[in-house]
Amino acid sequence: MSKKLSANTIDLLNRPTIVQSAAVGGKKEGEGPLGSYFDIINEDSLFGEDTWEKAESTMQKTVVNKALEKANLKSTDMDFIFAGDLLNQCIGSSYGLRDLDIPFIGLYGACSTMAESLTMASIFADNGLANYAMAVTSSHFCTAERQFRFPLEYGGQRTPTAQWTATASGAAIVAPNGDGPFVKSVTIGKIRDFGITDVNNMGAAMAPAAYYTIKTHLEDTATQPSDYDLILTGDLGQVGTDLLIDLLMRDNIDISKQHNDCGLLLYDLEKQDVHAGGSGCGCSASTLCGYILPKMRQGKLNNILFIATGALMSTTSVQQNQSIPGIAHCLNISTQR
Amino acid sequence: MSKKLSANTIDLLNRPTIVQSAAVGGKKEGEGPLGSYFDIINEDSLFGEDTWEKAESTMQKTVVNKALEKANLKSTDMDFIFAGDLLNQCIGSSYGLRDLDIPFIGLYGACSTMAESLTMASIFADNGLANYAMAVTSSHFCTAERQFRFPLEYGGQRTPTAQWTATASGAAIVAPNGDGPFVKSVTIGKIRDFGITDVNNMGAAMAPAAYYTIKTHLEDTATQPSDYDLILTGDLGQVGTDLLIDLLMRDNIDISKQHNDCGLLLYDLEKQDVHAGGSGCGCSASTLCGYILPKMRQGKLNNILFIATGALMSTTSVQQNQSIPGIAHCLNISTQR
Repeated sequence: MSKKLSANTIDLLNRPTIVQSAAVGGKKEGEGPLGSYFDIINEDSLFGEDTWEKAESTMQKTVVNKALEKANLKSTDMDFIFAGDLLNQCIGSSYGLRDLDIPFIGLYGACSTMAESLTMASIFADNGLANYAMAVTSSHFCTAERQFRFPLEYGGQRTPTAQWTATASGAAIVAPNGDGPFVKSVTIGKIRDFGITDVNNMGAAMAPAAYYTIKTHLEDTATQPSDYDLILTGDLGQVGTDLLIDLLMRDNIDISKQHNDCGLLLYDLEKQDVHAGGSGCGCSASTLCGYILPKMRQGKLNNILFIATGALMSTTSVQQNQSIPGIAHCLNISTQR
Repeated sequence: MSKKLSANTIDLLNRPTIVQSAAVGGKKEGEGPLGSYFDIINEDSLFGEDTWEKAESTMQKTVVNKALEKANLKSTDMDFIFAGDLLNQCIGSSYGLRDLDIPFIGLYGACSTMAESLTMASIFADNGLANYAMAVTSSHFCTAERQFRFPLEYGGQRTPTAQWTATASGAAIVAPNGDGPFVKSVTIGKIRDFGITDVNNMGAAMAPAAYYTIKTHLEDTATQPSDYDLILTGDLGQVGTDLLIDLLMRDNIDISKQHNDCGLLLYDLEKQDVHAGGSGCGCSASTLCGYILPKMRQGKLNNILFIATGALMSTTSVQQNQSIPGIAHCLNISTQR
């Protein structure tokens, strides 16, 4: 059972548990600082398929099956799966999950999808609508580059503010009861648009949305940054992180001690030449599901905010000189009920 | 408060009310059999904008504001808006709704989006998570043609099985209490793929999903077709309708007396040269929100199933010779609690 704390923050009174999670990545992700935390690293960026889009679908199916295996559950145990990705018409999810026979709720939140899907799965579990609900998303460097930017063969130059789309996927299973980590509350974001038009600076486009959602969550739950041992944004990268901290500081909210960003954790920014950091739905999904949630199970992290951020533009909207709207959703995940 | 009737059917015990709805359409939709039921018909397919994509966003914003006006509510009264559309990265919704300042949950269900968004809004209202939740979607003939098929300037030939993407949008507002129409139960569908590869025959690709969801809903709620005065699918068109009725007949479920399809209602198939019927997210959205729900308020329809169907392919998946997966979600809407 859930209770509204405000228009967009919901207290999940039954404290649903994230019973299990899994992360799958590609070669580059395996070589990064979090490489050893992935359940599966596939050196073949095609994942055995003949196209990158099929590879992304296969990666998403692989991570779902891995999470099920780790939880000792079958796909038929899942009541619902909440899924989405960056590809046009979200084909990473629809083709990846079509054989799993799980009632399917397709989402689109760009790189905020892990927070969006986990929010919805947690709400369903909290209200007795699911014994098990799964949240999953993915991104693939090669599908994203050719869809959003240039064919890889062009060898296009990347700007200093550009981020690197992760070839990665994460899945989490939520149940009404369990031993935690518990999802205690969620804040569903509003679309924010500060007029950023530089498609090579997604961090700047998404920072205002993260700012709004974090500020709203702290206010609605009457908490402050020091109540958390980690405030983890999705994929703002270095530029977006600096902006976020600055925006919040203007309201006298200092998250600099608790804040980190999945886009800064996933890669070694200098050695791996990813410029401003990682991005893509799979960046925050794999960091949360492969690295953060296991750390919580081990008691190394106890009370976190997870805020995945998404940039809601398309190549068409960019070509039409539209600015880039952002969205961010926030979950409070804790080892204590 | 909701109760699971099965894995994917949920009984909405508080019977949330669809307090208001609105429909906006283009010139062709205004000339069709349902033309007089639209709240707004805009003869200008650009809706005053300089691109079709901006036009679709403006249409979606217009229908939201019209629904709010009819309900005598403001956008700030909405706790959540569930929205999606057919455009890459769902820009119809993100740009259409960015100024409304409503917590935003982006969905992707292709042409099933009206059923998906209304399902989620109803679940939120039923469980006390929203005082008001809105569901909205749109489609635009010109954005869809150039994105999925050919530039309009080519004047491409259309096959007999092809459907016509509606330039239309529908929005509905759901609240926990009211005088109806009530959403009594919902069935969230599974992805079904019978191997259809003809992108000019969406009805055939979606019929298996509608078949699965209708059969599941009837079984889970222990009802039969004669319990309803209308079983309304989204946009199967003529080909998909014939297939659906045939598929269900093999299980001795005869819906032929109660069934109709939004794709067959929206246009005069022969006079308006739309071949197999209407399609697009806006087809079922505007038919439900502009024609069906008002009919229920007038007591002319009392107990219906609304099953919007979506084809989950993209141009990329089609070029890669993938078959077309379908999805369908079902709501039982009734004037009786």
